[in-house]
Amino acid sequence: MIITIGRQFGSGGGEAGKLVAERLGYKFYDNEILTMAAEASGLSPAAVSRFDEQPGNSLIYSMYMSTIPTGDMLPINQQLAFAQFNAIRVAARQDNCVFIGRCADYVLRQRRDVVDLFIHADMEFRKQRVIAAPEVYHITAENVERAIRKQDKKRADYYNFFTHGSWGSADNYHLALDSSYLGIEGVADAIVYFVQLREKQLKEEK
Amino acid sequence: MIITIGRQFGSGGGEAGKLVAERLGYKFYDNEILTMAAEASGLSPAAVSRFDEQPGNSLIYSMYMSTIPTGDMLPINQQLAFAQFNAIRVAARQDNCVFIGRCADYVLRQRRDVVDLFIHADMEFRKQRVIAAPEVYHITAENVERAIRKQDKKRADYYNFFTHGSWGSADNYHLALDSSYLGIEGVADAIVYFVQLREKQLKEEK
Repeated sequence: MIITIGRQFGSGGGEAGKLVAERLGYKFYDNEILTMAAEASGLSPAAVSRFDEQPGNSLIYSMYMSTIPTGDMLPINQQLAFAQFNAIRVAARQDNCVFIGRCADYVLRQRRDVVDLFIHADMEFRKQRVIAAPEVYHITAENVERAIRKQDKKRADYYNFFTHGSWGSADNYHLALDSSYLGIEGVADAIVYFVQLREKQLKEEK
Repeated sequence: MIITIGRQFGSGGGEAGKLVAERLGYKFYDNEILTMAAEASGLSPAAVSRFDEQPGNSLIYSMYMSTIPTGDMLPINQQLAFAQFNAIRVAARQDNCVFIGRCADYVLRQRRDVVDLFIHADMEFRKQRVIAAPEVYHITAENVERAIRKQDKKRADYYNFFTHGSWGSADNYHLALDSSYLGIEGVADAIVYFVQLREKQLKEEK
């Protein structure tokens, strides 16, 4: 089984995914997929980190990217995205995995043993989480709400650009959960239950 | 506990809600809330059925409604909506309940023991359900997809008009589920698990 998790910024979707991976014994890929993509593509680690989950349709990005010699027809952010998509495909063939973000649901859309999730939370919950972990988020209390909305916008743009889907719309996912309602451990609980229900159904089909 | 279920047309959200109500011993309100609202408001049953879940912001409706003497400042669809909202509040004070549609999540938004759900399904699943039950849906196979989209649009307009929320957006609900993925019984299973998880958390808080 494969679990993909889209998530609002600061919702703890990545953390919930990690708990799920630990409980089910699945491999966990968040930033890890970046390193794999960088190695496979020959892009420098700096470029890879700079362009992670960057939307492809912004004029400023296009202008910026056009100043970088890529040695290729595709702008760097797209090269990186496709390298990530390949890394996701390769990893998904080898093990049960949890993927955080990076359009993994779209990349693996042909497989029936994939559960696509979306984790969201109310703004207050997200603000508190982001402010409490400056070493992770690098965001100060003053502009936290604006920063959160900006990151959500980026994720939506990135996702919708590559998938033509609708990031954050309930019908884009098999299961969507509010982590500010159940808590991150509660969300992990509910995900494990849901995945096991699906697993059972697939076994009975055979 | 109170469970509210928003649902795409033909997704089986009402059916899933009924299963959940049976399993948890909750009261179930779908069209029932209409009858209660009609009785309390003095509106005729015919008007009540005609204006159920009708959006309030359409020019054609406004024109139509302006031709009807209401004996009140509010157009009939809004009178009915507010009568329904009252009926929902009254019912929710008396028992554990499941409410289908009709902005119940918004009406009961101040209560902490409410679980707000959204059920959706892919178009193929919904088409098959709708065509298989002409006695329920009164829709023929030829124009089924258009009819489904039209009903969804109506529900979204109705909901967004009264709540200023965002019908079908994942972050508008505590839990959103795809009934074409797990099946309607699977969805009911997952809901029961989720509700019991929340119930346990609320007990531990006390």
